[in-house]
Amino acid sequence: MPLVEIYLWKETSDEFKKEKLIKEVSKCVSEITGAPLEAVEILITEIPKANWGKGGAPASKW
Amino acid sequence: MPLVEIYLWKETSDEFKKEKLIKEVSKCVSEITGAPLEAVEILITEIPKANWGKGGAPASKW
Amino acid sequence: MPLVEIYLWKETSDEFKKEKLIKEVSKCVSEITGAPLEAVEILITEIPKANWGKGGAPASKW
Amino acid sequence: MPLVEIYLWKETSDEFKKEKLIKEVSKCVSEITGAPLEAVEILITEIPKANWGKGGAPASKW
Amino acid sequence: MPLVEIYLWKETSDEFKKEKLIKEVSKCVSEITGAPLEAVEILITEIPKANWGKGGAPASKW
Amino acid sequence: MPLVEIYLWKETSDEFKKEKLIKEVSKCVSEITGAPLEAVEILITEIPKANWGKGGAPASKW
Repeated sequence: MPLVEIYLWKETSDEFKKEKLIKEVSKCVSEITGAPLEAVEILITEIPKANWGKGGAPASKW
Repeated sequence: MPLVEIYLWKETSDEFKKEKLIKEVSKCVSEITGAPLEAVEILITEIPKANWGKGGAPASKW
Repeated sequence: MPLVEIYLWKETSDEFKKEKLIKEVSKCVSEITGAPLEAVEILITEIPKANWGKGGAPASKW
Repeated sequence: MPLVEIYLWKETSDEFKKEKLIKEVSKCVSEITGAPLEAVEILITEIPKANWGKGGAPASKW
Repeated sequence: MPLVEIYLWKETSDEFKKEKLIKEVSKCVSEITGAPLEAVEILITEIPKANWGKGGAPASKW
Repeated sequence: MPLVEIYLWKETSDEFKKEKLIKEVSKCVSEITGAPLEAVEILITEIPKANWGKGGAPASKW
């Protein structure tokens, strides 16, 4: 704790971005909350664009 | 916002159903909450039957 | 299953809207997925505007 | 209801463990909460180690 | 990791049940997955019956 | 999208920290993913220590 869940589009995600997100978001959350870096957890979920919609249409159809 | 997460069985899900869910659930939530349609987000997660259990047994064994 | 989680702003939510969402979204999801109405579950979470941000600022400051 | 979501590492998960978790966690939650076993639902999500980080680094790099 | 999220009805939840759930579910998940007990996390969310619906009606109206 | 859910302990959370988290985490996620700042959403959930357990005991008893 703190726990951070990040949802990204699968189509625009890659290993480099995920590793960088884990590093930088952990640092940022640790500094602001005062929790030790070792206590911050990040969980990334990659969502296909067809499974995410806004305004009534999936992102795959935008 | 509003944000809607929908969990479906992977085995009975398909692109047509997902697109229809995004369209119709967004419309329904927009009408009831008064939020503009553009503000409604839908996130669909497909769950294999082996990963969902009820009454102590996975759906894949029912 | 299906399971639907709906996130709303606490400040603009009320009992009437929640009951209507449960009724109408359940019906809509049942019709589209083919799942019996009795199998559809809805879970509503009310979020204070100060706990939801977009574009770097909480909704309470928009 | 009750609903239980379990997050596991994809690399160390398998069908046997998942079925056992569904059986035993359902029994445990039913006994403690007093809810009938039939009402307990379990949803398992398998997370690749590259998508889970702690202390600023993904589990795949530990 | 593993991470376990448990949703309970607020009206039938209490400190004793929550502490017991944390203790027993952690033990159960540790034994089945092989993860050390110290690594198992439990997060409990209490949901008012008016915010949970099944079959089109909130639990508060059943 | 991207969407970020942050879980904090209720007892150590406050308005200042939440506003700073929304600002800084949004900026960080926007820079790394390349998504425009306006598209990044943050949802903060505050968890009482009695509802969060690790190693079999709630944080309120540590």
